[in-house]
Amino acid sequence: MNSSPALDRVRIVLSHTSHPGNIGAAARAMKTMGLTRLFLVKPRRYPHADAEAFAAGAADVLANATLCESLEQALAGTVFTVGTTARRRDLPQEVRGCRDACTRLASATADGDVALVFGPERSGLTAGDAMRCTLLATIDGNPDYFSLNLAQAVQVFAYELRIATQGEAPPAVPATVPATHEELEALFRHLEQTMLEVGFLNPRQPKKLMQRMRRLISRARLEKEELNILRGFLRAAQRKLD
Amino acid sequence: MNSSPALDRVRIVLSHTSHPGNIGAAARAMKTMGLTRLFLVKPRRYPHADAEAFAAGAADVLANATLCESLEQALAGTVFTVGTTARRRDLPQEVRGCRDACTRLASATADGDVALVFGPERSGLTAGDAMRCTLLATIDGNPDYFSLNLAQAVQVFAYELRIATQGEAPPAVPATVPATHEELEALFRHLEQTMLEVGFLNPRQPKKLMQRMRRLISRARLEKEELNILRGFLRAAQRKLD
Repeated sequence: MNSSPALDRVRIVLSHTSHPGNIGAAARAMKTMGLTRLFLVKPRRYPHADAEAFAAGAADVLANATLCESLEQALAGTVFTVGTTARRRDLPQEVRGCRDACTRLASATADGDVALVFGPERSGLTAGDAMRCTLLATIDGNPDYFSLNLAQAVQVFAYELRIATQGEAPPAVPATVPATHEELEALFRHLEQTMLEVGFLNPRQPKKLMQRMRRLISRARLEKEELNILRGFLRAAQRKLD
Repeated sequence: MNSSPALDRVRIVLSHTSHPGNIGAAARAMKTMGLTRLFLVKPRRYPHADAEAFAAGAADVLANATLCESLEQALAGTVFTVGTTARRRDLPQEVRGCRDACTRLASATADGDVALVFGPERSGLTAGDAMRCTLLATIDGNPDYFSLNLAQAVQVFAYELRIATQGEAPPAVPATVPATHEELEALFRHLEQTMLEVGFLNPRQPKKLMQRMRRLISRARLEKEELNILRGFLRAAQRKLD
């Protein structure tokens, strides 16, 4: 199992979940992002075959889940807790965006366990449960149609937590050798010469065209191999002209 | 319908999707984040009741979807295209993270239509289709268990596109009036006085304690109302002492 000290300190707490399938789907969403610690506060039906079915390859997350009698029990020992809400409701607490909240959760893992709490599917966290959290967080969305289900919300938060703790991996760029300055200058000369030979470049007004070709080719940041292909093509054209 | 000029320029292209339910779930994920333009390249079964069922309130996105015979047709007129891939595969193209790619997509909307392309559920985009895209993007995840389904991947990309185009909304902070500097200094004096009166503060070594109280109270960034409550409490304690 791919493990990260920061992600290992994050508890995902599902409070009073109605549908066991959602518990399974949440476990899968967690594991996909490298989260493993699931806490279930009084799930309506659990254990249940639907939870297993929706967990797919994340049965280990379910098997290791902690069943709790109360939210207090699930939060015991944490140093920072974020409650999730579907709307920026009129609550006495601060409601932050998902990314903002996950950045805070991630930095709080330096101090100990943290928790991200999701209420029941229909009603969300009660005001009382929301009050027990350090702050609340919501996922920004279309104000006219917001229809993220529990597992999708867990997915988006888990994704943000992963990036907040691990960063986004740098782009995978195929291994290539860039063309050098001298090679590029040789190409420009070769190109100019060929354009003159085919009568495309007017020697009395040559400047603009070569500037544009330089701009284009520089932007493309040619590889050595690509440069060689272009020069081969120019040579072939010149040979044909002889 | 909540509309954004940038999001309106984003085409979500589903190529050769097998399960119509995934098309519906993708439509729902799109609409939740304010995306509306769905392009379907040769879906295996469509239209289909499952698509409608999974779309829930996003039937309008389905109804306005463009059915295409080829990826070329779906990409016609776009100025920037991102193909999605489940892995940072050994492809001749650059593979960027989801956030990185969505930032690029968002800025390219300034120039015209852009597209985000998802291949079939099992196999993903063919090498030939991937080659037609400006760049490829993947969602970082647990390398030992990566199990995002099509609709979840659309959800995460749609979420990133929304933030890349709209930004994350600032935190919703309940309307409060912060305490002023003078009020805070008056509170510190009052607190120090009361601590002396109850014998908690040793006047021969007073410094550390008040420093800590100042640090705590400053960090809490008191509201005027909270400050008044604290002073009321101190006054009540002082009265009781008389």
